[in-house]
Amino acid sequence: MNINVPRGTEDLLPANTKQWQVIEETLKELADRYHYNEIRTPMFERTELFQRSVGDTTDIVQKEMYTFKDRSERSLTLRPEGTASVARAYVQHKMHGSADQPSKLYYLGPMFRYERPQQGRTRQFTQFGIEAIGSADAAIDAEVMAFAMECYQALGLKSLKLVLNSLGDQESREAHRQALVEHFKPHKNELCSDCQMRLEQNPLRLLDCKVDRDHPSMNQAPSILEYLNDYSNNYFNEVKKHLDYMEIPYVVDETLVRGLDYYTHTAFEIMSEAEGFGAITTLSGGGRYNGLIQDLGGPEYSGIGFALSIERLLMALEAEGIVIDPDYALDCYVITMGEEAKYTASKLVYELRKAGFRVDQDYLDKKMKAQFKAADRYHAKYAIIIGDEEVASGVANVKNLAEGEQKTIALDEIVSELDITL
Amino acid sequence: MNINVPRGTEDLLPANTKQWQVIEETLKELADRYHYNEIRTPMFERTELFQRSVGDTTDIVQKEMYTFKDRSERSLTLRPEGTASVARAYVQHKMHGSADQPSKLYYLGPMFRYERPQQGRTRQFTQFGIEAIGSADAAIDAEVMAFAMECYQALGLKSLKLVLNSLGDQESREAHRQALVEHFKPHKNELCSDCQMRLEQNPLRLLDCKVDRDHPSMNQAPSILEYLNDYSNNYFNEVKKHLDYMEIPYVVDETLVRGLDYYTHTAFEIMSEAEGFGAITTLSGGGRYNGLIQDLGGPEYSGIGFALSIERLLMALEAEGIVIDPDYALDCYVITMGEEAKYTASKLVYELRKAGFRVDQDYLDKKMKAQFKAADRYHAKYAIIIGDEEVASGVANVKNLAEGEQKTIALDEIVSELDITL
Repeated sequence: MNINVPRGTEDLLPANTKQWQVIEETLKELADRYHYNEIRTPMFERTELFQRSVGDTTDIVQKEMYTFKDRSERSLTLRPEGTASVARAYVQHKMHGSADQPSKLYYLGPMFRYERPQQGRTRQFTQFGIEAIGSADAAIDAEVMAFAMECYQALGLKSLKLVLNSLGDQESREAHRQALVEHFKPHKNELCSDCQMRLEQNPLRLLDCKVDRDHPSMNQAPSILEYLNDYSNNYFNEVKKHLDYMEIPYVVDETLVRGLDYYTHTAFEIMSEAEGFGAITTLSGGGRYNGLIQDLGGPEYSGIGFALSIERLLMALEAEGIVIDPDYALDCYVITMGEEAKYTASKLVYELRKAGFRVDQDYLDKKMKAQFKAADRYHAKYAIIIGDEEVASGVANVKNLAEGEQKTIALDEIVSELDITL
Repeated sequence: MNINVPRGTEDLLPANTKQWQVIEETLKELADRYHYNEIRTPMFERTELFQRSVGDTTDIVQKEMYTFKDRSERSLTLRPEGTASVARAYVQHKMHGSADQPSKLYYLGPMFRYERPQQGRTRQFTQFGIEAIGSADAAIDAEVMAFAMECYQALGLKSLKLVLNSLGDQESREAHRQALVEHFKPHKNELCSDCQMRLEQNPLRLLDCKVDRDHPSMNQAPSILEYLNDYSNNYFNEVKKHLDYMEIPYVVDETLVRGLDYYTHTAFEIMSEAEGFGAITTLSGGGRYNGLIQDLGGPEYSGIGFALSIERLLMALEAEGIVIDPDYALDCYVITMGEEAKYTASKLVYELRKAGFRVDQDYLDKKMKAQFKAADRYHAKYAIIIGDEEVASGVANVKNLAEGEQKTIALDEIVSELDITL
């Protein structure tokens, strides 16, 4: 019985990793330009972190976490998203004490959610995200959204839409919460059992219920925008003004809430408008979390972040017909004939690599013709041919595979000779 | 109550990740030169995989794995090492069917072992490793060892030792196993309870027992090298001959066994000889695994691999006093005065970044002097100063911070002007 990869997870083989490398390098280079520095947090956290930050009543915490006990009976959870861990690290390491405020951080790595596997949705997926913690300046909200759009644009995507909303501050949210309760109460018995509970605990979560999303009461639900107080309303206007100055198009969608409890004020999503992308067009999202740092024991600092899934980014590339196909070519392929030549080849290959060349050789005692075929398959620029006769005279035949010409070169001069030629 | 990182795990903050990035890029570039391509496997596997490959009676499987059940009651384990997963992927995706034989693969990522945390040993650690599957040519054993040494040399390490042994093929191992049983039987009652069990199940594992390592019988234990059959002995000699040709120094240590069951023939370790490195001097290791692919349901293909922990690599760098300190400098820092200037700055920052510059600005409404200080702290080449007056005239003052000279430039010409200057 063969053992396969666990359900909902995938291997990335070399044919794919080359493409991933290009995407990841592009994203990291973009983070560098925007002055975000990398942070790495562990793959798992104490379960309590996500309960407290993402929120006890969210789908993520209630249904989708990989939670387990370690050998000392501590409850740990594979991280389902990145913001909670970064905020935890910010507080733990007292990063608010550093002169770099706001702290601008990026992360890249696996996240884990136990969901029903489907195309572009795996139980282990890869998130790239940024967080800017320590500023409540509307300019940084605009920066984060500009960055989010550029992640896709830098890879050639065009059919994109930035969708924006404000969830307001605590006071605005409380007013909205009461309006939601008033609105949904008469329909309580028509809603799913989860939503009946949400109505008591966290009525905002009703708005992203996957079961009740077509219930008529959803359409007429009170909009948060009507309940924004002055501060929240001004803040939202400033964010939009920055985007207008930057000439970044957006649409306001007052039904946009995000599936995590920590968001306040700015919430946004990037959507694909490419034909053939399928029903779910949200590529990624983010937002502001002004209470989170304090909730986790830090000072009253606010933050904003954004995260994308590389798996969904790949789907968007496919939908727009964008192919990322990095070239890869060997510099030299060393071809041997006979037993003694193999040892000489090992030494030469080693020296060429030490000098910085991309080099390989045959490890299957293939015939000469098959070795030449391998050199072609790896797009080698040079074939270096060594037989026992060459070993005896201390030379090798170096063939330029594109041009066909061949030279005999002393073994100890090949590295310097190629250095000039390549 | 603040929530901290789980015991035995660590955050990497920007001061450290910059160093990690350099190390990882160096290792990946080296893999590229040696013609190894990246493979990525999930963070967890079905538990059975490690039981079958790493071995039921190893410390890793018996004591150190993070094993848990998912919501469908499948037993999963966070990967404690990389080879088992790569071998599983090789078999699952029938990579033996591809023309690229041997398949030369590298991986980089977190591994998980529940051990007592100590310096350089964390419960989540980072492994970089290579596997060459599909060749039983001694030349590739030498290649893998050359690669292993170069991982450290490329970062400037010098006090290194390559230690080599052969564990032989199945027949040789069986002969050795019987000799081990004969040897240890008279001492059975003096050994720890684990070793008493090992004597029945897997006597080779006695040799890496941490409890009994000082027992007098350990010194006189029969050496595998005396039990190698002709094939194994020849193979070992060929491996050494390749290393000799490549002028790579090594020492043979017949007591070197590795803590995993799948090894056959070549087993090796890289050790640090730096003073002040501490008691445990093994940096990394690897070896050949000729039965593993078949054990996992694949064809009778052999493989060899190597893995290092980046955490231990960092300790070795520290022991040799090697500091990796990548430069980082912003191209521009935009300094604003007044409300209107902020919107203009957002636009300019956005455009400069789009043009490829590393740019940042203030998000805390700091005074001008403090903004200049930030520009210095980030080693910005240019400060771009915008006040409300500049906004009104459509210009900004661009100051070369190293040379002190300042120019007034039209806002819509800054990008092209800097493009020339930088």
